[in-house]
Amino acid sequence: MLYFENDYQEGAHPSILERLAQTNLTPMSGYGTDPLCASAIEKIKLACGCPDADAFLLSGGTQTNRTVISSLLYPYEGVIAAKTGHISVHEGGAIEASGHKVIELQAVDGKLDIDAAEAYLKAYDADENNSHMVRPAMIYISFPTELGTLYSKKELQKLRAICNEYALTLYADGARLGYALASPECDVSLRELAALCDVFYIGGTKMGALIGEAVVFPKGDTSPRIITLIKQNGALLAKGRLLGAQFDALFTDELYFRLGEHAIAMAEKLKAVLKRMGMRFYLESPTNQQFVIVENAAMQALREKVKFSFWEKYDENHSVIRFVTSWATDEKSIDALEKLL
Amino acid sequence: MLYFENDYQEGAHPSILERLAQTNLTPMSGYGTDPLCASAIEKIKLACGCPDADAFLLSGGTQTNRTVISSLLYPYEGVIAAKTGHISVHEGGAIEASGHKVIELQAVDGKLDIDAAEAYLKAYDADENNSHMVRPAMIYISFPTELGTLYSKKELQKLRAICNEYALTLYADGARLGYALASPECDVSLRELAALCDVFYIGGTKMGALIGEAVVFPKGDTSPRIITLIKQNGALLAKGRLLGAQFDALFTDELYFRLGEHAIAMAEKLKAVLKRMGMRFYLESPTNQQFVIVENAAMQALREKVKFSFWEKYDENHSVIRFVTSWATDEKSIDALEKLL
Amino acid sequence: MLYFENDYQEGAHPSILERLAQTNLTPMSGYGTDPLCASAIEKIKLACGCPDADAFLLSGGTQTNRTVISSLLYPYEGVIAAKTGHISVHEGGAIEASGHKVIELQAVDGKLDIDAAEAYLKAYDADENNSHMVRPAMIYISFPTELGTLYSKKELQKLRAICNEYALTLYADGARLGYALASPECDVSLRELAALCDVFYIGGTKMGALIGEAVVFPKGDTSPRIITLIKQNGALLAKGRLLGAQFDALFTDELYFRLGEHAIAMAEKLKAVLKRMGMRFYLESPTNQQFVIVENAAMQALREKVKFSFWEKYDENHSVIRFVTSWATDEKSIDALEKLL
Amino acid sequence: MLYFENDYQEGAHPSILERLAQTNLTPMSGYGTDPLCASAIEKIKLACGCPDADAFLLSGGTQTNRTVISSLLYPYEGVIAAKTGHISVHEGGAIEASGHKVIELQAVDGKLDIDAAEAYLKAYDADENNSHMVRPAMIYISFPTELGTLYSKKELQKLRAICNEYALTLYADGARLGYALASPECDVSLRELAALCDVFYIGGTKMGALIGEAVVFPKGDTSPRIITLIKQNGALLAKGRLLGAQFDALFTDELYFRLGEHAIAMAEKLKAVLKRMGMRFYLESPTNQQFVIVENAAMQALREKVKFSFWEKYDENHSVIRFVTSWATDEKSIDALEKLL
Repeated sequence: MLYFENDYQEGAHPSILERLAQTNLTPMSGYGTDPLCASAIEKIKLACGCPDADAFLLSGGTQTNRTVISSLLYPYEGVIAAKTGHISVHEGGAIEASGHKVIELQAVDGKLDIDAAEAYLKAYDADENNSHMVRPAMIYISFPTELGTLYSKKELQKLRAICNEYALTLYADGARLGYALASPECDVSLRELAALCDVFYIGGTKMGALIGEAVVFPKGDTSPRIITLIKQNGALLAKGRLLGAQFDALFTDELYFRLGEHAIAMAEKLKAVLKRMGMRFYLESPTNQQFVIVENAAMQALREKVKFSFWEKYDENHSVIRFVTSWATDEKSIDALEKLL
Repeated sequence: MLYFENDYQEGAHPSILERLAQTNLTPMSGYGTDPLCASAIEKIKLACGCPDADAFLLSGGTQTNRTVISSLLYPYEGVIAAKTGHISVHEGGAIEASGHKVIELQAVDGKLDIDAAEAYLKAYDADENNSHMVRPAMIYISFPTELGTLYSKKELQKLRAICNEYALTLYADGARLGYALASPECDVSLRELAALCDVFYIGGTKMGALIGEAVVFPKGDTSPRIITLIKQNGALLAKGRLLGAQFDALFTDELYFRLGEHAIAMAEKLKAVLKRMGMRFYLESPTNQQFVIVENAAMQALREKVKFSFWEKYDENHSVIRFVTSWATDEKSIDALEKLL
Repeated sequence: MLYFENDYQEGAHPSILERLAQTNLTPMSGYGTDPLCASAIEKIKLACGCPDADAFLLSGGTQTNRTVISSLLYPYEGVIAAKTGHISVHEGGAIEASGHKVIELQAVDGKLDIDAAEAYLKAYDADENNSHMVRPAMIYISFPTELGTLYSKKELQKLRAICNEYALTLYADGARLGYALASPECDVSLRELAALCDVFYIGGTKMGALIGEAVVFPKGDTSPRIITLIKQNGALLAKGRLLGAQFDALFTDELYFRLGEHAIAMAEKLKAVLKRMGMRFYLESPTNQQFVIVENAAMQALREKVKFSFWEKYDENHSVIRFVTSWATDEKSIDALEKLL
Repeated sequence: MLYFENDYQEGAHPSILERLAQTNLTPMSGYGTDPLCASAIEKIKLACGCPDADAFLLSGGTQTNRTVISSLLYPYEGVIAAKTGHISVHEGGAIEASGHKVIELQAVDGKLDIDAAEAYLKAYDADENNSHMVRPAMIYISFPTELGTLYSKKELQKLRAICNEYALTLYADGARLGYALASPECDVSLRELAALCDVFYIGGTKMGALIGEAVVFPKGDTSPRIITLIKQNGALLAKGRLLGAQFDALFTDELYFRLGEHAIAMAEKLKAVLKRMGMRFYLESPTNQQFVIVENAAMQALREKVKFSFWEKYDENHSVIRFVTSWATDEKSIDALEKLL
């Protein structure tokens, strides 16, 4: 069997497991106050180029989104997201459960339609009855998006300008951030992203960690009481060292970036194979997720030998399926896939 | 000045004020346990043809929607509504504040696109990852809709069938229910509506009361503890008699229905006047709200003499405006409007 | 039957009904933007001696508490209240439903034990693990309390000082504020209360209105977006005039204060009667609620002729019962009660 | 430095790390659908003697409490807990954030005062105004408690009987369950506990895992949609294998029970040392947490050489401090402590 189902199908990168094993029996204080967390956070701030940032290690993406978003919104405010955004669809209503509306706007290839967002904000401001409406107070983007696509630097700057004009905060969900940064099409660096956003997170779970996401508030303007909110949302691990050790390993010797590069190299190779096979692409993705349209019968046959994700029905006879590479993808498995197809 | 701004611009129908005055100094027990509430509820159950119903008098539409919806959903469930639905747009995020997602689907002339709803439910059921998604557990409709339109009996039956098939509840927001029932295009009676819905409310505020909405659970299957939820949502008035007296008056001698009929007769006349004047209608509305498209300059001129609602921008030079009739509309004001135009 | 059950057993004071009737058919804009609301708010600000205040008319006490409290707390913050406070016991968990903990502390005769509050705050500040605890960010008091008792000016100043020291806001629930202000034992004026609190509300429902509570933020430091929160909590009436007319009447010719004085005069007379009858008082209440301890058999006998409230079981053979006077209490009913006892 | 600060100061038990390493590169499906989770759950159900149970692996205690409690309560319901219970004090208001009141009742040595609970429920049932109060619908206990104490089988049976009588569910927080079960004073087995509770969780984090808690609904009566709630609360790990592998190791060859036994043996030895030293115990704890009262000066001196937890101020000159043993405690460190004291 060949495995291209997702980027969390394996455990941790060996360097991470090793760091966990090395430090395993050393007693450390709990809840993120240990030296591994401190070291990881210092390295992350350095990598982001924002020494005054506040940074926190949380345990998962949904919790991170929920904690960050609810920390920044008043109870009468909501967050704008693409219809296809993770918080719009696949977090079990976590944002609404925290009391806030996700204002879902049109998406183009998985990206928030920036013109639609601007038009929405303009209309909200002009509406005499807007006091009866949720105030849009944040723009949420995922980078890369759930469909593997990327915002260009120019688009990010446009989003920043819109947020400034209408007094919103800009939040980037970087569950797969390393795969974005390593893409040849990505024209923004981690430091530039940090300079453009009010808050973002650096995903660990899909980038070789067992668990963990690092939230960064580049301006260092968060309330120290956000710890209570992290606790309330169940994202404050007693053994914070589990997160500290992993991010410390990921941000040592640029491991995080190297893992991204490997996955992207594998994705490029995979894309070439799929193209040679005459596969029809659902959209052009420059990162580690590749979407192709296949006949249903072919999909069933392929399932015998390859693990991939069913994405959605395309039409009566076709489906969209997803192939994913990651830090763990072995080049040989792509060669084997080529033989198979 | 002529007044067609909305159906809550006056106070109460004189019969209602009178009932309040007559009973004003009689001591009664609080929180809806008084004889006026009891009498009103009996009359409402009779009018709905469901003697076993549970019925409650609440203080406002947003509270009613919030209380009813949160009483029926598990924390991982959401409610389907048209994009233009009241709970989607104009309740300040009240449903989300109670923890639930409003799943906004396409609207056609203010009505939920039933095919879109069915397709959504079918796709949800077929989605292998739907445990990561909010479960759609209720369909919310407004009857009439925010744009004055009506679902036909056949459409309501279709909605009922869909709810049965996918195990959802059907909830009708009847803020302006009396104006629907009195419309010549309405092919469903109050009793038929009660038979089709799991829960609905009979609006008072826009139908001649000062305040108040009557919620009906036709099958009488509500927890008696819903009173605690009504209290929690601030919808349980200490002086419940204020609601009891008003609904008692509204459901005496069919006042509620007569008020609806008057408003519809006035709306028909108004529509004829607007048509004679060559006004361009935004959509065909069979109830008491009429929407027309006017040039911006003409709109400004009209504002000097007539109160109406600005609805939305139509294009650079045109706006959609709304004229509303109600139980209080005086025929002479329509004649005066004709002269003016 | 004689009626001393509560202070909301009648409808509205005749002057209020009259104001409603006079203005009933005049068309006015909705949601609190009408001239009656504007006039009422001006008069209230004048009476409070704070011309720069923000003031809002809401529809009920539970909603008001919920809206005000949730408007001022971050999601990781809670509110300190006496164990016997209204928000602690009798609002169906409304504050918790908005996501916030009510930190219930010891009460003495219905009043928050100020020393206990100070000790709690001191211990919280000193606790190394307090980031795992809800931050106490507000003190809630009711004035008068649910047991009819009053905080002295000195006590209010102490609460103010504590709030300043620990960075909390001070909020007074004035559901029966008029009965406090009219008490001979009250040594604080409305203006002084306004100067001491960050926010408070002037109760209407129990002071002769059909419905309605006026929230005052004396410093005028509220977000204008609080209107969206009021809407979300279902406290923004379409016919805001219903609240405007009533508070306009209450704050014309000092009606609000005169109603309080009448009720207190009646309470003094009632207290004298109860004392003459040898009744045992549960506690000394200087306002319109009087609590006495009676034998269960005597209580049952009395119920045949008098409406009062059962308050709580005292011991196996005795109960605490409550007699309440109000703006509507007729002196003759007290004379009749004396004859009866 | 000697370490007795808590039972989560080290990483994972070596067998657990080993299981993680062995399985690390095997691709598995996500979100708890992997074979390690399946195996762990089977073993847990077997150990609990309830083959029909529903069991889920969640990521942390606060999340588990929040998810379980909110899955079982209606929005107008609350949970009874001891004032000193974890959900009452140290979860940052997580239960209230999910909309539910924690009804805090008196505690005796960290245990819910069962008589107080029964009296509360009786009074609630008898209260005519209880529809204005949160309905108590669950009893939460921690086993062992936050102070290391244990409920006897008789006490648990009494709680069960009370829950049956008043229609509440009984939930046991077993963050340190293994330390309870291994105590010589514990007269209840895991199977008996499972038979008495409606739901409980088996703590992993404090019992040698890096992270993870196993929730068991012994009767198997949970909605399958609870997965959506787990996701919403951020407790559904993409790499569910991290939890599966750990619990699979813990429930292989009775490791979980052996770790408990080791910690209790160490606690007994520690207790003997502390007694020999003439230490004054704060209370008698039969599990792995020991609380002693020390002079403040002695506490400061001890801090130079030993890590322990400051628990609370006892009086002006004394403090309560906590020593904790765990699966990882080395007997030599206790010998060293004896020499030191």
